[in-house]
Amino acid sequence: MPDLQNDRLLRALLRETVDKTPIWIMRQAGRYLPEYRATRQKAGNFLELCKNPELACEVTLQPLERFELDAAILFSDILTIPDAMGLGLYFTEGEGPAFMHPIRTRADVEKIGIPDPESELAYVTQAIHTICTALNGRVPLIGFSGSPWTLASYMVEGRGSRTFSRIKGMLYSEPTLLHQLLDKMARSVTDCLNAQIAAGAQVVQIFDTWGGVLAEPQYMEFSLQYMRQIVENLTHECRGRRVPIILFTKGGGLWLDALANTGCDAVGLDWTLSIGRARTQVGDRVALQGNLDPSALYANAEGVSKAAKNIIEDFGQGSGHVFNLGHGITPDIDPENVKILVDTVHQYSARFHND
Amino acid sequence: MPDLQNDRLLRALLRETVDKTPIWIMRQAGRYLPEYRATRQKAGNFLELCKNPELACEVTLQPLERFELDAAILFSDILTIPDAMGLGLYFTEGEGPAFMHPIRTRADVEKIGIPDPESELAYVTQAIHTICTALNGRVPLIGFSGSPWTLASYMVEGRGSRTFSRIKGMLYSEPTLLHQLLDKMARSVTDCLNAQIAAGAQVVQIFDTWGGVLAEPQYMEFSLQYMRQIVENLTHECRGRRVPIILFTKGGGLWLDALANTGCDAVGLDWTLSIGRARTQVGDRVALQGNLDPSALYANAEGVSKAAKNIIEDFGQGSGHVFNLGHGITPDIDPENVKILVDTVHQYSARFHND
Repeated sequence: MPDLQNDRLLRALLRETVDKTPIWIMRQAGRYLPEYRATRQKAGNFLELCKNPELACEVTLQPLERFELDAAILFSDILTIPDAMGLGLYFTEGEGPAFMHPIRTRADVEKIGIPDPESELAYVTQAIHTICTALNGRVPLIGFSGSPWTLASYMVEGRGSRTFSRIKGMLYSEPTLLHQLLDKMARSVTDCLNAQIAAGAQVVQIFDTWGGVLAEPQYMEFSLQYMRQIVENLTHECRGRRVPIILFTKGGGLWLDALANTGCDAVGLDWTLSIGRARTQVGDRVALQGNLDPSALYANAEGVSKAAKNIIEDFGQGSGHVFNLGHGITPDIDPENVKILVDTVHQYSARFHND
Repeated sequence: MPDLQNDRLLRALLRETVDKTPIWIMRQAGRYLPEYRATRQKAGNFLELCKNPELACEVTLQPLERFELDAAILFSDILTIPDAMGLGLYFTEGEGPAFMHPIRTRADVEKIGIPDPESELAYVTQAIHTICTALNGRVPLIGFSGSPWTLASYMVEGRGSRTFSRIKGMLYSEPTLLHQLLDKMARSVTDCLNAQIAAGAQVVQIFDTWGGVLAEPQYMEFSLQYMRQIVENLTHECRGRRVPIILFTKGGGLWLDALANTGCDAVGLDWTLSIGRARTQVGDRVALQGNLDPSALYANAEGVSKAAKNIIEDFGQGSGHVFNLGHGITPDIDPENVKILVDTVHQYSARFHND
């Protein structure tokens, strides 16, 4: 591995001093970029793009050409794990992801196995190798996975859901069966993330996109518990460096304290919780990542810049902050506003790191 | 007005002793009931049903015939106020509410006036008179309105939204214009709720369905501030009784403390915050309403009953709790599970009120 030329992200995640607050953006390689849409068309569809290491590398690097981002994130999808389990992932235009063979019965749960990352998910580690070579140490590469609860939600519902009626029916009627599924998912996620780390990922993030739809005791039992189990079993050091782990539960502001006690290095915040208040709450247990409302990017240039500055001021002086949106960037955002955001964060944050 | 035969709801909202925890259910008169669907068909469509006092009364009473509920809630829609402002409310099958003339410009904001509840919204007060006569003191009647922020969201977006791109664009780019709109909405909501109270509503609830999509400082400035303004200007006593005010911000668990300081009598909780933890936080400032996950009703009978008992235990001994779901009941729920819920709450809660 070549030396890292920009280690702001790694340093901020470990709460070491930095010159400026690092920034990356969830879904930074995405549909808001015309060059992304062109590559995706070339690939045929979204899933083909994920499974093609060369093209996945191409889109991973695209946002770095436009913006002074402090990290690259593997271009992939959280649902590649259930796909590797044989559920038959497909994408419908406008409706999002769906599975041909959803998990509905005890037999369905018992049937699925733990995928071997080196065979069933080889395209993921291959993409990481390709991206690391292309990056050549420019910025660190973030690997990722969905959380067991989030993956299980899609697997049981069979597609996106507003009410989560099937998985919550299972949770309240057959909790033991759901635990059996979640345990398999936790083991699969652990293997997949450890393979990503071995292949070159220098940071990993677990996306718990749907943890926030749970009631508090159910969140602890059915989502957080399994993320803690993963954190315990991840490779914490690789190639002589600590590999920081970021946990992100969308809608998890109420459970920040429990998240900070999982053993992770950083907690990702959505925009509903003030990052200053969050910092007071977590103290020096973890770094924080976030948390601009993605819809602030619908504002004019002045509005975007002001909103970014407010977050930086709210976090305050010193390290331990990775700037990000509070959720993925939406497809109808003007890339020009992303440039304003990234540049504002770097320029304005310098004064908060001068002691 | 005839004497109230069941005042459990009013007593619990004022934290006075009760024999059992009262329960009502958001959207209790709704599509999950076959008799509701029949009346709605008779009316022609949803909006006609809202505007017909006799039929609105019919559906308001339907759930009380099936379940031992402790309150009736006016059958109406939060968007009747913007409709009375001339925005042209209509409903599309499967897509929800929409406006023919959304608010997009300064001129749009300046043009709208404060509706007179006695003329433009006469069908609302007429429905309340009709319902009160039919109830004849059986249970109290709850009146309601949307919050200024929630109403403005629909008015500016023109329909439901996932990203709230237009109103958040306005919030971050033209905050003064948005404040002008929200002030008009707050005055309109105040007039409308005071008219509902004068007509016979014994409790009022403000539904801040979309407050939870805001970042913390924006929630305080653009949603909570206007709810506080309404609370200050509502009729607090009518017909010799206090008229309790319930504020419900979906996704507002992080802001419970601020909600409890608005001067309202009770705060409605969605299911993401433990009600026991919420009770500790608010102390004796307000009563609490909630907070079963509506999707717990997808469980089997045993699962529903267990989930309800857990909430009652979590709240603990004594008054100040109104049982409800954490959001409206969904259309595909089996009414049999609602019966199990209501009966469990009454039977199981008695032991928590015996000191």
